[in-house]
Amino acid sequence: MRVRIHLPDMSTEVPEPAFDEQELLPAIAQDSESGDVLMLAYVSREAFERTRETGLAHYYSRSREELWQKGKTSGNVQHVEDIRIDCDGDALLYLVRQQGGACHTGYESCFYRSLDGDVVAERIFDPDDVYE
Amino acid sequence: MRVRIHLPDMSTEVPEPAFDEQELLPAIAQDSESGDVLMLAYVSREAFERTRETGLAHYYSRSREELWQKGKTSGNVQHVEDIRIDCDGDALLYLVRQQGGACHTGYESCFYRSLDGDVVAERIFDPDDVYE
Repeated sequence: MRVRIHLPDMSTEVPEPAFDEQELLPAIAQDSESGDVLMLAYVSREAFERTRETGLAHYYSRSREELWQKGKTSGNVQHVEDIRIDCDGDALLYLVRQQGGACHTGYESCFYRSLDGDVVAERIFDPDDVYE
Repeated sequence: MRVRIHLPDMSTEVPEPAFDEQELLPAIAQDSESGDVLMLAYVSREAFERTRETGLAHYYSRSREELWQKGKTSGNVQHVEDIRIDCDGDALLYLVRQQGGACHTGYESCFYRSLDGDVVAERIFDPDDVYE
């Protein structure tokens, strides 16, 4: 039988974010209240710094090749309450209060479908009303 | 005032996983019970297929350049209960029952530290007992 043991904390030295060869790092946005995983996007150093400075989630769009503030157009901003970094420093977890929905399709979460096509999340806005 | 509206579901056609130029895709593992985000890793097509066939999470290690079954050495396997795919098909969410801890440091989650060094998760095993 496996016994749950309580050990002193170790590895508490926080690693520097390990940006990859494209100078990017994946960041997961999780709703701090519901625990729902909302989206995965990438951050550049500038997006990371801007997020820390403003408390609003910023990312880097690989397709548009630009810094991007989540919700700047739609109003669906993410207030970042805490940032976690993983064991080897190559992924971030943003705990956020999500204004409106995170997904441009109108769903709360970008992960609104299971692989078999079931829709598992709620559609809460009409993208036609929000995006030009 | 913003009114919560309920719209018919759209975009229910499930996209094919959009593997990147390295033929990889990021996958987030989330504890299906607690909602904790446990880790982020990458999957190759083979890792993805193996996961679907076996119900056990498989990933691709970019540093070791090999397919990898989570917990094969440590016993800390992940039983995959559902797989979600994001709006544009370039990220996966594994909902898992985690045996033991997900992190090789002994913590339940790899995201056990906030950026300011606070340890926000529980250390539940001693890696020296588990890994050679």
